[in-house]
Amino acid sequence: MQIEGKNQVVEAIKNEMTINKILIDKNFASRKDDVINLARKNQLKIDFLPKKILDEKSITGHHQGYIAETVDFEYCSVNDIISNCKNEAFVVLLDGIEDPHNLGAIIRTCECAGVDGIIIPKMRSCQVNETVVRTSAGAISNMKIARVANLKTAIDQLKENGLWVYACELGGEDIYSQNLTGPIAVVVGSEGNGIKQSLRTYCDGIVTLPLKGSVNSLNASVSAGIVIYEILRQRENQKK
Amino acid sequence: MQIEGKNQVVEAIKNEMTINKILIDKNFASRKDDVINLARKNQLKIDFLPKKILDEKSITGHHQGYIAETVDFEYCSVNDIISNCKNEAFVVLLDGIEDPHNLGAIIRTCECAGVDGIIIPKMRSCQVNETVVRTSAGAISNMKIARVANLKTAIDQLKENGLWVYACELGGEDIYSQNLTGPIAVVVGSEGNGIKQSLRTYCDGIVTLPLKGSVNSLNASVSAGIVIYEILRQRENQKK
Repeated sequence: MQIEGKNQVVEAIKNEMTINKILIDKNFASRKDDVINLARKNQLKIDFLPKKILDEKSITGHHQGYIAETVDFEYCSVNDIISNCKNEAFVVLLDGIEDPHNLGAIIRTCECAGVDGIIIPKMRSCQVNETVVRTSAGAISNMKIARVANLKTAIDQLKENGLWVYACELGGEDIYSQNLTGPIAVVVGSEGNGIKQSLRTYCDGIVTLPLKGSVNSLNASVSAGIVIYEILRQRENQKK
Repeated sequence: MQIEGKNQVVEAIKNEMTINKILIDKNFASRKDDVINLARKNQLKIDFLPKKILDEKSITGHHQGYIAETVDFEYCSVNDIISNCKNEAFVVLLDGIEDPHNLGAIIRTCECAGVDGIIIPKMRSCQVNETVVRTSAGAISNMKIARVANLKTAIDQLKENGLWVYACELGGEDIYSQNLTGPIAVVVGSEGNGIKQSLRTYCDGIVTLPLKGSVNSLNASVSAGIVIYEILRQRENQKK
Protein backbone atom coordinates (compact mmCIF):
# COMPACT_ATOMS: atom_id res chain seq x y z
CA MET A 1 0.00 0.00 0.00
CA GLN A 2 1.18 3.58 -0.42
CA ILE A 3 0.26 6.69 1.51
CA GLU A 4 0.31 10.02 -0.27
CA GLY A 5 0.37 13.65 0.83
CA LYS A 6 2.41 15.47 3.48
CA ASN A 7 0.04 15.21 6.45
CA GLN A 8 -0.84 11.63 5.62
CA VAL A 9 2.84 10.59 5.57
CA VAL A 10 3.54 12.47 8.83
CA GLU A 11 0.61 10.72 10.53
CA ALA A 12 1.78 7.35 9.21
CA ILE A 13 5.27 7.86 10.69
CA LYS A 14 3.97 9.19 14.00
CA ASN A 15 1.64 6.24 14.32
CA GLU A 16 4.38 3.74 13.63
CA MET A 17 2.91 2.18 10.54
CA THR A 18 5.31 -0.26 8.92
CA ILE A 19 6.95 1.90 6.25
CA ASN A 20 9.30 0.36 3.65
CA LYS A 21 10.56 3.67 2.32
CA ILE A 22 9.49 7.23 1.72
CA LEU A 23 9.65 8.80 -1.72
CA ILE A 24 10.19 12.56 -1.63
CA ASP A 25 10.38 15.15 -4.41
CA LYS A 26 14.14 15.78 -4.80
CA ASN A 27 13.52 19.54 -4.89
CA PHE A 28 12.65 19.28 -1.19
CA ALA A 29 15.98 17.61 -0.27
CA SER A 30 17.82 20.74 0.71
CA ARG A 31 15.07 22.57 2.57
CA LYS A 32 13.95 22.32 6.18
CA ASP A 33 11.29 19.72 5.96
CA ASP A 34 9.17 18.14 8.69
CA VAL A 35 8.80 14.86 6.87
CA ILE A 36 12.53 14.47 6.21
CA ASN A 37 13.39 15.30 9.82
CA LEU A 38 10.78 12.92 11.16
CA ALA A 39 11.80 10.14 8.76
CA ARG A 40 15.50 10.48 9.72
CA LYS A 41 14.65 10.52 13.41
CA ASN A 42 12.79 7.25 12.89
CA GLN A 43 15.59 5.79 10.76
CA LEU A 44 13.37 5.36 7.74
CA LYS A 45 14.76 4.98 4.23
CA ILE A 46 14.23 8.04 2.02
CA ASP A 47 14.46 8.11 -1.79
CA PHE A 48 14.72 11.57 -3.33
CA LEU A 49 13.21 11.35 -6.80
CA PRO A 50 12.20 13.72 -9.61
CA LYS A 51 8.63 14.98 -9.23
CA LYS A 52 7.82 13.28 -12.54
CA ILE A 53 8.43 9.84 -11.03
CA LEU A 54 6.24 10.62 -8.02
CA ASP A 55 3.53 11.76 -10.45
CA GLU A 56 3.79 8.40 -12.21
CA LYS A 57 3.68 6.41 -8.98
CA SER A 58 0.85 8.44 -7.51
CA ILE A 59 -2.52 6.71 -7.38
CA THR A 60 -4.52 9.57 -5.93
CA GLY A 61 -2.88 12.34 -7.97
CA HIS A 62 -2.39 14.37 -4.78
CA HIS A 63 1.01 13.30 -3.47
CA GLN A 64 2.27 16.84 -2.71
CA GLY A 65 5.81 15.52 -3.12
CA TYR A 66 5.51 12.74 -0.51
CA ILE A 67 4.71 9.05 -0.91
CA ALA A 68 5.26 6.45 1.82
CA GLU A 69 5.36 2.81 0.78
CA THR A 70 3.87 0.81 3.60
CA VAL A 71 2.92 -2.76 4.21
CA ASP A 72 -0.75 -3.55 3.75
CA PHE A 73 -3.16 -2.26 6.34
CA GLU A 74 -3.31 -4.63 9.28
CA TYR A 75 -6.76 -5.42 10.46
CA CYS A 76 -7.20 -6.51 14.05
CA SER A 77 -9.68 -8.92 15.67
CA VAL A 78 -12.88 -8.05 17.50
CA ASN A 79 -11.17 -9.26 20.68
CA ASP A 80 -8.32 -6.79 20.09
CA ILE A 81 -10.88 -4.00 20.01
CA ILE A 82 -12.73 -5.23 23.08
CA SER A 83 -9.60 -5.74 25.16
CA ASN A 84 -8.29 -2.27 24.29
CA CYS A 85 -11.51 -0.40 25.01
CA LYS A 86 -11.49 2.47 27.45
CA ASN A 87 -13.74 2.31 30.52
CA GLU A 88 -16.90 2.74 28.53
CA ALA A 89 -16.56 0.90 25.24
CA PHE A 90 -17.63 2.67 22.05
CA VAL A 91 -17.60 0.53 18.90
CA VAL A 92 -18.98 1.20 15.39
CA LEU A 93 -20.09 -1.59 13.02
CA LEU A 94 -20.56 -0.85 9.31
CA ASP A 95 -22.97 -3.12 7.44
CA GLY A 96 -21.74 -2.91 3.88
CA ILE A 97 -20.47 0.62 3.20
CA GLU A 98 -19.52 0.56 -0.51
CA ASP A 99 -18.04 3.98 -1.24
CA PRO A 100 -14.41 4.42 -0.12
CA HIS A 101 -15.02 8.16 0.46
CA ASN A 102 -17.78 7.27 2.92
CA LEU A 103 -15.63 4.64 4.65
CA GLY A 104 -12.72 7.09 4.91
CA ALA A 105 -14.94 9.87 6.26
CA ILE A 106 -16.50 7.52 8.84
CA ILE A 107 -13.05 6.35 10.02
CA ARG A 108 -12.08 10.03 10.39
CA THR A 109 -15.24 10.77 12.38
CA CYS A 110 -14.66 7.74 14.63
CA GLU A 111 -11.12 8.86 15.39
CA CYS A 112 -12.30 12.40 16.19
CA ALA A 113 -15.05 11.12 18.48
CA GLY A 114 -12.79 8.74 20.42
CA VAL A 115 -14.37 5.53 19.12
CA ASP A 116 -12.44 2.42 20.25
CA GLY A 117 -12.75 0.43 17.03
CA ILE A 118 -14.63 -0.24 13.82
CA ILE A 119 -15.91 -3.59 12.58
CA ILE A 120 -16.55 -4.20 8.88
CA PRO A 121 -17.64 -7.34 7.01
CA LYS A 122 -15.22 -9.15 4.69
CA MET A 123 -17.79 -9.48 1.93
CA ARG A 124 -19.96 -6.91 0.14
CA SER A 125 -18.18 -3.98 1.77
CA CYS A 126 -15.49 -1.53 0.78
CA GLN A 127 -12.15 -2.58 2.30
CA VAL A 128 -9.31 -0.29 3.40
CA ASN A 129 -7.65 0.93 0.18
CA GLU A 130 -5.69 3.99 -0.98
CA THR A 131 -8.79 6.16 -1.32
CA VAL A 132 -9.99 5.18 2.16
CA VAL A 133 -6.57 5.98 3.64
CA ARG A 134 -6.49 9.37 1.94
CA THR A 135 -10.09 10.29 2.77
CA SER A 136 -9.50 9.36 6.40
CA ALA A 137 -6.93 12.21 6.52
CA GLY A 138 -4.51 10.20 8.66
CA ALA A 139 -7.14 8.84 11.04
CA ILE A 140 -6.67 5.31 9.72
CA SER A 141 -3.35 4.95 11.51
CA ASN A 142 -5.00 5.62 14.90
CA MET A 143 -8.00 3.41 14.43
CA LYS A 144 -8.46 -0.30 15.12
CA ILE A 145 -10.44 -1.93 12.33
CA ALA A 146 -11.58 -5.55 12.50
CA ARG A 147 -12.75 -7.41 9.42
CA VAL A 148 -15.14 -10.27 10.12
CA ALA A 149 -16.90 -12.99 8.17
CA ASN A 150 -20.13 -12.43 10.06
CA LEU A 151 -21.36 -9.27 11.78
CA LYS A 152 -23.83 -11.28 13.90
CA THR A 153 -21.00 -13.22 15.52
CA ALA A 154 -19.24 -9.91 16.22
CA ILE A 155 -22.43 -8.55 17.79
CA ASP A 156 -22.59 -11.66 20.00
CA GLN A 157 -19.04 -11.01 21.19
CA LEU A 158 -19.86 -7.36 21.94
CA LYS A 159 -23.03 -8.30 23.84
CA GLU A 160 -21.15 -10.91 25.87
CA ASN A 161 -18.76 -8.15 26.89
CA GLY A 162 -21.55 -5.93 28.16
CA LEU A 163 -22.03 -3.59 25.21
CA TRP A 164 -25.52 -2.49 24.16
CA VAL A 165 -25.86 -2.73 20.40
CA TYR A 166 -28.04 -0.20 18.55
CA ALA A 167 -28.95 -0.15 14.87
CA CYS A 168 -29.17 3.30 13.30
CA GLU A 169 -32.05 2.94 10.86
CA LEU A 170 -35.46 4.32 9.85
CA GLY A 171 -38.48 3.28 11.88
CA GLY A 172 -36.89 3.08 15.33
CA GLU A 173 -37.01 5.22 18.46
CA ASP A 174 -36.16 8.93 18.21
CA ILE A 175 -32.42 8.96 18.90
CA TYR A 176 -32.72 12.03 21.12
CA SER A 177 -35.12 10.24 23.48
CA GLN A 178 -32.70 7.35 24.04
CA ASN A 179 -30.08 6.99 26.74
CA LEU A 180 -26.92 6.17 24.80
CA THR A 181 -24.44 6.30 27.66
CA GLY A 182 -22.60 3.24 28.92
CA PRO A 183 -20.71 0.65 26.86
CA ILE A 184 -22.20 0.87 23.38
CA ALA A 185 -21.92 -0.34 19.82
CA VAL A 186 -23.79 1.27 16.93
CA VAL A 187 -24.49 -0.34 13.56
CA VAL A 188 -24.59 1.90 10.49
CA GLY A 189 -26.05 0.60 7.21
CA SER A 190 -24.95 0.80 3.60
CA GLU A 191 -25.61 3.67 1.22
CA GLY A 192 -28.42 2.05 -0.71
CA ASN A 193 -30.01 -0.53 1.53
CA GLY A 194 -29.39 0.45 5.13
CA ILE A 195 -28.92 -2.39 7.61
CA LYS A 196 -29.96 -5.92 6.62
CA GLN A 197 -33.29 -6.84 8.22
CA SER A 198 -31.84 -9.95 9.90
CA LEU A 199 -29.11 -7.86 11.53
CA ARG A 200 -31.47 -5.08 12.56
CA THR A 201 -33.62 -7.42 14.65
CA TYR A 202 -30.47 -8.83 16.21
CA CYS A 203 -29.65 -5.50 17.85
CA ASP A 204 -30.84 -4.37 21.30
CA GLY A 205 -32.63 -1.36 19.82
CA ILE A 206 -33.10 0.80 16.76
CA VAL A 207 -32.44 4.54 16.89
CA THR A 208 -33.64 6.94 14.21
CA LEU A 209 -32.66 10.47 13.26
CA PRO A 210 -35.53 12.92 12.77
CA LEU A 211 -36.21 13.77 9.12
CA LYS A 212 -38.11 16.99 8.45
CA GLY A 213 -37.96 17.14 4.66
CA SER A 214 -39.27 15.04 1.81
CA VAL A 215 -35.99 13.27 1.07
CA ASN A 216 -35.98 10.40 3.52
CA SER A 217 -32.31 9.64 3.95
CA LEU A 218 -28.99 11.26 4.71
CA ASN A 219 -25.62 10.47 3.17
CA ALA A 220 -24.17 7.40 4.94
CA SER A 221 -21.10 9.15 6.36
CA VAL A 222 -23.17 12.16 7.45
CA SER A 223 -25.74 10.07 9.32
CA ALA A 224 -22.94 8.02 10.91
CA GLY A 225 -21.33 11.30 12.02
CA ILE A 226 -24.52 12.63 13.58
CA VAL A 227 -25.17 9.39 15.50
CA ILE A 228 -21.56 9.02 16.67
CA TYR A 229 -21.47 12.62 17.90
CA GLU A 230 -24.85 12.28 19.64
CA ILE A 231 -23.38 9.35 21.60
CA LEU A 232 -20.29 11.46 22.38
CA ARG A 233 -22.51 14.38 23.49
CA GLN A 234 -24.45 12.19 25.90
CA ARG A 235 -21.28 10.64 27.33
CA GLU A 236 -19.61 14.02 27.83
CA ASN A 237 -22.80 15.40 29.34
CA GLN A 238 -22.95 12.55 31.84
CA LYS A 239 -19.42 13.31 33.07
CA LYS A 240 -20.43 16.85 34.08
CA MET B 1 -28.73 20.82 -16.96
CA GLN B 2 -29.66 17.15 -16.87
CA ILE B 3 -30.77 14.96 -14.00
CA GLU B 4 -29.89 11.30 -14.08
CA GLY B 5 -31.13 8.22 -12.26
CA LYS B 6 -34.62 6.95 -11.47
CA ASN B 7 -35.16 8.48 -8.01
CA GLN B 8 -33.55 11.74 -9.07
CA VAL B 9 -35.90 12.10 -12.05
CA VAL B 10 -38.95 11.20 -9.92
CA GLU B 11 -37.99 13.85 -7.35
CA ALA B 12 -37.45 16.43 -10.10
CA ILE B 13 -40.94 15.80 -11.50
CA LYS B 14 -42.61 15.78 -8.08
CA ASN B 15 -40.92 19.03 -7.19
CA GLU B 16 -42.02 20.72 -10.38
CA MET B 17 -38.60 21.48 -11.76
CA THR B 18 -38.79 22.89 -15.28
CA ILE B 19 -38.19 19.79 -17.40
CA ASN B 20 -37.73 20.07 -21.18
CA LYS B 21 -37.99 16.36 -21.82
CA ILE B 22 -37.24 13.00 -20.28
CA LEU B 23 -35.05 10.46 -22.05
CA ILE B 24 -35.89 6.86 -21.14
CA ASP B 25 -34.30 3.57 -22.18
CA LYS B 26 -36.62 2.24 -24.89
CA ASN B 27 -36.54 -1.20 -23.30
CA PHE B 28 -38.60 0.30 -20.46
CA ALA B 29 -41.35 1.59 -22.82
CA SER B 30 -43.67 -1.38 -22.52
CA ARG B 31 -43.34 -2.10 -18.83
CA LYS B 32 -45.17 -0.63 -15.84
CA ASP B 33 -42.91 2.21 -14.91
CA ASP B 34 -43.28 4.87 -12.20
CA VAL B 35 -41.34 7.48 -14.13
CA ILE B 36 -43.36 7.02 -17.34
CA ASN B 37 -46.67 7.18 -15.44
CA LEU B 38 -45.62 10.26 -13.52
CA ALA B 39 -44.24 11.98 -16.62
CA ARG B 40 -47.47 11.34 -18.57
CA LYS B 41 -49.59 12.55 -15.67
CA ASN B 42 -47.59 15.78 -15.72
CA GLN B 43 -47.79 16.04 -19.52
CA LEU B 44 -44.03 15.91 -19.94
CA LYS B 45 -42.38 15.00 -23.23
CA ILE B 46 -40.76 11.54 -23.22
CA ASP B 47 -38.18 10.30 -25.75
CA PHE B 48 -37.62 6.55 -25.75
CA LEU B 49 -34.05 5.96 -26.91
CA PRO B 50 -31.60 3.06 -27.16
CA LYS B 51 -29.58 2.59 -23.96
CA LYS B 52 -26.44 3.33 -25.98
CA ILE B 53 -27.57 6.92 -26.60
CA LEU B 54 -28.36 7.43 -22.91
CA ASP B 55 -24.90 6.09 -22.11
CA GLU B 56 -23.40 8.66 -24.46
CA LYS B 57 -25.45 11.53 -23.05
CA SER B 58 -24.82 10.53 -19.43
CA ILE B 59 -22.43 12.73 -17.49
CA THR B 60 -22.46 10.82 -14.24
CA GLY B 61 -22.40 7.34 -15.79
CA HIS B 62 -25.27 6.31 -13.50
CA HIS B 63 -28.42 7.16 -15.49
CA GLN B 64 -30.20 3.83 -14.76
CA GLY B 65 -32.16 4.37 -17.99
CA TYR B 66 -33.56 7.81 -17.06
CA ILE B 67 -32.30 11.29 -17.92
CA ALA B 68 -34.35 14.46 -17.45
CA GLU B 69 -33.27 17.55 -19.37
CA THR B 70 -34.06 20.54 -17.19
CA VAL B 71 -33.45 24.26 -17.29
CA ASP B 72 -30.47 25.45 -15.28
CA PHE B 73 -30.79 25.50 -11.51
CA GLU B 74 -32.41 28.73 -10.40
CA TYR B 75 -30.73 30.38 -7.47
CA CYS B 76 -32.83 32.66 -5.30
CA SER B 77 -31.93 35.80 -3.35
CA VAL B 78 -31.15 36.09 0.36
CA ASN B 79 -34.41 38.01 0.71
CA ASP B 80 -36.31 35.11 -0.85
CA ILE B 81 -34.89 32.85 1.84
CA ILE B 82 -35.64 35.29 4.65
CA SER B 83 -39.19 36.01 3.54
CA ASN B 84 -39.97 32.30 3.21
CA CYS B 85 -38.55 31.28 6.58
CA LYS B 86 -40.71 29.41 9.02
CA ASN B 87 -41.35 30.91 12.48
CA GLU B 88 -37.82 30.32 13.63
CA ALA B 89 -35.45 30.89 10.74
CA PHE B 90 -32.70 28.32 10.13
CA VAL B 91 -30.17 29.26 7.44
CA VAL B 92 -26.83 27.67 6.47
CA LEU B 93 -23.95 29.63 4.88
CA LEU B 94 -21.10 27.78 3.17
CA ASP B 95 -17.77 29.62 2.98
CA GLY B 96 -16.14 28.06 -0.05
CA ILE B 97 -17.03 24.35 -0.18
CA GLU B 98 -15.03 23.05 -3.16
CA ASP B 99 -16.02 19.40 -3.52
CA PRO B 100 -19.37 18.84 -5.29
CA HIS B 101 -19.90 15.64 -3.25
CA ASN B 102 -19.65 17.67 -0.05
CA LEU B 103 -21.97 20.39 -1.38
CA GLY B 104 -24.51 17.77 -2.48
CA ALA B 105 -24.35 15.95 0.86
CA ILE B 106 -24.78 19.24 2.78
CA ILE B 107 -27.82 20.20 0.66
CA ARG B 108 -29.27 16.75 1.42
CA THR B 109 -28.65 17.20 5.15
CA CYS B 110 -30.21 20.69 5.12
CA GLU B 111 -33.33 19.37 3.43
CA CYS B 112 -33.61 16.52 5.95
CA ALA B 113 -33.18 18.89 8.90
CA GLY B 114 -35.76 21.41 7.69
CA VAL B 115 -33.27 24.21 6.96
CA ASP B 116 -34.95 27.20 5.24
CA GLY B 117 -32.16 28.02 2.80
CA ILE B 118 -28.48 27.84 1.94
CA ILE B 119 -26.23 30.75 0.96
CA ILE B 120 -23.05 30.16 -1.08
CA PRO B 121 -20.51 32.62 -2.51
CA LYS B 122 -20.26 33.18 -6.28
CA MET B 123 -16.48 32.95 -6.27
CA ARG B 124 -14.11 30.28 -4.96
CA SER B 125 -16.90 27.84 -4.24
CA CYS B 126 -18.41 24.84 -5.93
CA GLN B 127 -21.63 25.83 -7.71
CA VAL B 128 -24.69 23.65 -8.29
CA ASN B 129 -23.71 21.20 -11.06
CA GLU B 130 -24.65 17.70 -12.17
CA THR B 131 -22.61 16.00 -9.44
CA VAL B 132 -24.13 18.23 -6.75
CA VAL B 133 -27.64 17.47 -8.02
CA ARG B 134 -26.96 13.74 -8.02
CA THR B 135 -25.24 13.69 -4.62
CA SER B 136 -28.10 15.67 -3.11
CA ALA B 137 -30.38 12.68 -3.93
CA GLY B 138 -33.25 14.91 -5.01
CA ALA B 139 -32.96 17.35 -2.10
CA ILE B 140 -31.83 20.14 -4.42
CA SER B 141 -35.34 20.58 -5.80
CA ASN B 142 -36.72 21.31 -2.31
CA MET B 143 -33.99 23.68 -1.18
CA LYS B 144 -33.64 27.42 -1.66
CA ILE B 145 -30.05 28.30 -2.52
CA ALA B 146 -28.85 31.91 -2.82
CA ARG B 147 -25.58 32.78 -4.52
CA VAL B 148 -24.02 36.03 -3.33
CA ALA B 149 -21.01 38.15 -4.20
CA ASN B 150 -20.23 38.75 -0.54
CA LEU B 151 -21.06 36.57 2.46
CA LYS B 152 -20.59 39.51 4.86
CA THR B 153 -23.41 41.42 3.18
CA ALA B 154 -25.59 38.33 3.47
CA ILE B 155 -24.73 38.06 7.17
CA ASP B 156 -25.73 41.71 7.62
CA GLN B 157 -29.10 40.97 6.03
CA LEU B 158 -29.61 37.95 8.30
CA LYS B 159 -28.63 39.92 11.42
CA GLU B 160 -31.01 42.76 10.46
CA ASN B 161 -33.77 40.18 10.32
CA GLY B 162 -33.09 38.95 13.83
CA LEU B 163 -31.00 35.85 13.12
CA TRP B 164 -28.02 34.98 15.32
CA VAL B 165 -25.07 34.01 13.17
CA TYR B 166 -22.64 31.35 14.42
CA ALA B 167 -19.41 30.21 12.80
CA CYS B 168 -18.62 26.51 13.14
CA GLU B 169 -14.85 26.45 13.58
CA LEU B 170 -12.01 25.33 15.83
CA GLY B 171 -11.23 27.41 18.90
CA GLY B 172 -14.75 28.53 19.83
CA GLU B 173 -17.21 27.58 22.55
CA ASP B 174 -18.15 23.93 23.03
CA ILE B 175 -21.22 23.59 20.81
CA TYR B 176 -23.04 21.52 23.43
CA SER B 177 -22.81 24.33 25.99
CA GLN B 178 -24.45 26.85 23.64
CA ASN B 179 -28.13 27.69 23.33
CA LEU B 180 -28.78 27.35 19.61
CA THR B 181 -32.55 27.81 19.66
CA GLY B 182 -34.26 30.82 18.12
CA PRO B 183 -33.71 32.26 14.62
CA ILE B 184 -30.25 31.11 13.61
CA ALA B 185 -27.73 31.00 10.79
CA VAL B 186 -24.63 28.83 10.88
CA VAL B 187 -21.51 29.30 8.75
CA VAL B 188 -19.58 26.19 7.67
CA GLY B 189 -16.06 26.53 6.27
CA SER B 190 -14.26 25.00 3.32
CA GLU B 191 -12.54 21.60 3.28
CA GLY B 192 -9.00 22.90 3.53
CA ASN B 193 -9.12 26.28 5.20
CA GLY B 194 -12.26 26.47 7.31
CA ILE B 195 -13.91 29.87 7.56
CA LYS B 196 -11.99 32.98 6.50
CA GLN B 197 -10.70 34.86 9.55
CA SER B 198 -12.44 38.10 8.53
CA LEU B 199 -15.76 36.29 8.29
CA ARG B 200 -15.29 34.40 11.54
CA THR B 201 -14.96 37.58 13.58
CA TYR B 202 -18.03 38.95 11.82
CA CYS B 203 -20.24 36.28 13.37
CA ASP B 204 -22.05 36.56 16.72
CA GLY B 205 -20.22 33.53 18.08
CA ILE B 206 -18.03 30.56 17.23
CA VAL B 207 -19.12 27.02 18.09
CA THR B 208 -16.73 24.07 18.11
CA LEU B 209 -17.26 20.33 18.00
CA PRO B 210 -15.30 18.30 20.55
CA LEU B 211 -12.35 16.39 19.09
CA LYS B 212 -11.07 13.45 21.10
CA GLY B 213 -8.49 12.02 18.71
CA SER B 214 -5.25 13.22 17.18
CA VAL B 215 -6.72 14.15 13.79
CA ASN B 216 -8.06 17.63 14.34
CA SER B 217 -10.76 17.96 11.72
CA LEU B 218 -13.81 16.20 10.38
CA ASN B 219 -14.92 15.92 6.77
CA ALA B 220 -16.73 19.17 5.80
CA SER B 221 -20.09 17.56 5.06
CA VAL B 222 -19.89 15.43 8.23
CA SER B 223 -19.16 18.38 10.52
CA ALA B 224 -21.91 20.40 8.80
CA GLY B 225 -24.28 17.49 9.44
CA ILE B 226 -23.41 17.23 13.12
CA VAL B 227 -23.85 20.98 13.69
CA ILE B 228 -27.10 21.19 11.72
CA TYR B 229 -28.56 18.24 13.63
CA GLU B 230 -27.44 19.63 16.99
CA ILE B 231 -29.41 22.80 16.17
CA LEU B 232 -32.39 20.64 15.15
CA ARG B 233 -32.09 18.62 18.39
CA GLN B 234 -32.15 21.75 20.54
CA ARG B 235 -35.13 23.21 18.64
CA GLU B 236 -37.13 19.99 18.91
CA ASN B 237 -36.21 19.68 22.57
CA GLN B 238 -37.47 23.18 23.26
CA LYS B 239 -40.86 22.38 21.74
CA LYS B 240 -41.44 19.57 24.26
